[in-house]
Amino acid sequence: MAREKTAALIVIGNEILSGKIADTNSSFLAAELRALGVSLRRILVIPDEVDVIAEAVRAYQPAHDVLFTSGGVGPTHDDVTMTGVARGLGREVIRHPYLEAKMREFFGSDLNDARLKMAEVVAGSTLLFEGNLSFPTIQVENIYILPGIPEIFREKFTAIRQRFTVDPFHLRVIYARVQETCIADYLNRTIESFPDLLLGSYPKLHDPEYRVRVTLESKDQQYLEQAFQALMSMLPPSAVVRTE
Amino acid sequence: MAREKTAALIVIGNEILSGKIADTNSSFLAAELRALGVSLRRILVIPDEVDVIAEAVRAYQPAHDVLFTSGGVGPTHDDVTMTGVARGLGREVIRHPYLEAKMREFFGSDLNDARLKMAEVVAGSTLLFEGNLSFPTIQVENIYILPGIPEIFREKFTAIRQRFTVDPFHLRVIYARVQETCIADYLNRTIESFPDLLLGSYPKLHDPEYRVRVTLESKDQQYLEQAFQALMSMLPPSAVVRTE
Repeated sequence: MAREKTAALIVIGNEILSGKIADTNSSFLAAELRALGVSLRRILVIPDEVDVIAEAVRAYQPAHDVLFTSGGVGPTHDDVTMTGVARGLGREVIRHPYLEAKMREFFGSDLNDARLKMAEVVAGSTLLFEGNLSFPTIQVENIYILPGIPEIFREKFTAIRQRFTVDPFHLRVIYARVQETCIADYLNRTIESFPDLLLGSYPKLHDPEYRVRVTLESKDQQYLEQAFQALMSMLPPSAVVRTE
Repeated sequence: MAREKTAALIVIGNEILSGKIADTNSSFLAAELRALGVSLRRILVIPDEVDVIAEAVRAYQPAHDVLFTSGGVGPTHDDVTMTGVARGLGREVIRHPYLEAKMREFFGSDLNDARLKMAEVVAGSTLLFEGNLSFPTIQVENIYILPGIPEIFREKFTAIRQRFTVDPFHLRVIYARVQETCIADYLNRTIESFPDLLLGSYPKLHDPEYRVRVTLESKDQQYLEQAFQALMSMLPPSAVVRTE
């Protein structure tokens, strides 16, 4: 099997660590990357602190094919992502002429220092114009710098998502009406016979329909089907509610 | 001001990284810790891999007053949190006599190897019996090992939450009907005058009522009120929808 394409996400935001806002960008990106065949290996939520961002970038950027950041790119004092990423890469922060011109065009006489701050990028950044958005997406090396506001995060990622396509995972699901502990031995035997299978089991409490959702995944569809049949042959038919 | 009590959370789960399940334990714990006055400094989501867990424990356990883990403590092949935490601390995994007895009592003749796995803990663990739950919560050093299933995660944390009380943060909120970029200068001036203030601003798109939610926080209520009044005196009255 070819080496996987790996990704990490750094979420920058005191508002998430303090429980004021629930992070929805992570689960959105996780599902998108899965559908694209990219293996998301880490999600890290950190405060709006330059040195912490720099340290996270130094740790995750070389270790993954793609690194995403979410948040910290607005006009206020706590928007320090550009500075943090720049420090992590040993680069400067510059005011980008194209972005400055766009800000002047967009805000006109309402332009102020806070708004001009949004024209600052890490030196050496590439502006990505996919998707015809009002403002381009910022890329520097293998890092994609996305805003934290969920609607804009989604819009910007969706505009560039085709860049990340590799061969996707195939998925089968079994819904079982017995407790996880009753089928754990079958799951363990399945993974022994199919060591490359990605096998998950997720108990659901208080659901009238099922008690465990079992997921089987592989990039190799035939291998997945064999593993699925092997597990199904071990399960008592009465234990299976339905499959997908 | 007294030194803050800090915390970190390690979420262990391929199901979250692959986007199959959205992590709700993080936002729950973040809000709980905030209400208790504990500063959550990191949330890290990692795969079900022993060495990755061990590395995360080694990085986060000494750097925080309290470390929580979520997930990876069930009966299946991918439940490797105990092994990972043990490796991170340089300890062994043992089968705990009390838990083994509880499992035998609970499952009777349905006990199997998978279920017995749930009696395994890191050597030197303390069993916490607060809350009269069916099974105690596991603590080793400053690490609290919680299950990933959201209902049980909440139940277990709630049972032990009083352990973590320190002096809480006080909060004021301003809802503004203007864009964040229009008030960013006022926010920056407020933080210059009140450097210990925790100030956040969160744009909301497509909301009929307001466009930015500004939060001011401090453990010192008087300091908070002074900062709040200072910021309010700079904002045009027409820009403020309401305050909390």
